[in-house]
Amino acid sequence: MYKLILVRHGESEWNKLNLFTGWTDVELSETGRAEAKAAGQGLKELGVKFDVCFTSYLKRAIHTLNYILDEMDLAYLPVYKAWQLNERHYGALQGLNKAETAEKFGEPQVKLWRRSYDVPPPELDPKDPRCPANQETYKNVNKKELPLTESLKITVERVVPYFNEKIKPELEAGKTVLVAAHGNSLRALIMHLEHMSEEDVINLNLPTGVPVIYELDDNYEVISKQYVGDQEAIKAKMNAVANQGKVQK
Amino acid sequence: MYKLILVRHGESEWNKLNLFTGWTDVELSETGRAEAKAAGQGLKELGVKFDVCFTSYLKRAIHTLNYILDEMDLAYLPVYKAWQLNERHYGALQGLNKAETAEKFGEPQVKLWRRSYDVPPPELDPKDPRCPANQETYKNVNKKELPLTESLKITVERVVPYFNEKIKPELEAGKTVLVAAHGNSLRALIMHLEHMSEEDVINLNLPTGVPVIYELDDNYEVISKQYVGDQEAIKAKMNAVANQGKVQK
Repeated sequence: MYKLILVRHGESEWNKLNLFTGWTDVELSETGRAEAKAAGQGLKELGVKFDVCFTSYLKRAIHTLNYILDEMDLAYLPVYKAWQLNERHYGALQGLNKAETAEKFGEPQVKLWRRSYDVPPPELDPKDPRCPANQETYKNVNKKELPLTESLKITVERVVPYFNEKIKPELEAGKTVLVAAHGNSLRALIMHLEHMSEEDVINLNLPTGVPVIYELDDNYEVISKQYVGDQEAIKAKMNAVANQGKVQK
Repeated sequence: MYKLILVRHGESEWNKLNLFTGWTDVELSETGRAEAKAAGQGLKELGVKFDVCFTSYLKRAIHTLNYILDEMDLAYLPVYKAWQLNERHYGALQGLNKAETAEKFGEPQVKLWRRSYDVPPPELDPKDPRCPANQETYKNVNKKELPLTESLKITVERVVPYFNEKIKPELEAGKTVLVAAHGNSLRALIMHLEHMSEEDVINLNLPTGVPVIYELDDNYEVISKQYVGDQEAIKAKMNAVANQGKVQK
């Protein structure tokens, strides 16, 4: 049996500002830091152990992981950082205000970009400094692999191969793995693990800073799934995320 | 030409308490955190770049590295953690007060343990919870490799092979490497790089939280060595470390 723990980073500075974030490398907010610490406390109280960690290249996920490790006194654990676990790239919308974008392009179009499985937002111009290919952070990544925009479908196409190539070998070596990542990169992974339809994955609202523990059988079929923390508070949090989507339609 | 940056962690909570620390996993003090941030600022102001980081299993070094990465906005860089870069193990003295130890064993004996190259402090009983072999942190390390005590000589015998096997390949791949570690694991590395005698290495007092940049030729001979920061302040800091040793004789 394999054990895999997923955790979505806490609230970021841009969540509060209502901006499209994507690969923009923004900090956790004060609330986000508190969520990350609470995630570590929750895992500690449950007596959960893990052996190796994966995270993205984005500091809101890396810092969430660091807070968890510090709360659990596990700073010494190996951590692998991968661009493939980054948030979905939001293309030319990155850095724009969500309300202003709705005014400019119309609400139905923005809803389509935000809530469809395979319609990506407009591409960035390849010369745009927001392109990962133009950024120091991604200088060691093959430029052909780096996106100008992404749908959830395109996100799945980088997350799942990374899971198969880098994370499965750790699980198969008997290690418990923790992945600290993003709303959409974790959606991609959960879609794969739970054989979700395109429709179902769009309606999946993973709460921020709440670890979810999967037990998987030898064929990677889900045996159990457990959210860590106060179950009523988690339900409220999941509803809040779902409603946030509705308000912004 | 290779480029290697070494940085000793900032002041820890136990520095202030005058306790033998060794592999005890203590936190940075407030001063230590400020030193770590200043190290990052100093590197940033100098426009120094690096590609990959190494640190120990001990949080005072890991956190020093994390503060440096955050100050420089480089949290995404790969970090390898290795017990081989840990501080010298202080054996049965770990956790004891330095002044009380001098009273118990006599000042000449304590001086010998602290300032000789090859006289290790008394060994820990293998059943002692302070033995790394009994600790969760080191569960994946071959127990035969884990010390019950260490002289500086024994420290050299684990640091230098690690440097040769894990750090040199990164340098030879054209990467600039930063190592965030400890007074004695860095002494071991510097002794090796600078071909220091046993006597000279004992008198080497690396200041805390001050990065030192080495340029090395293809045969790993030192071309240049530069301490990062205000040079007068660094000199004062190095003298303070040297005098601290004298006071405690």
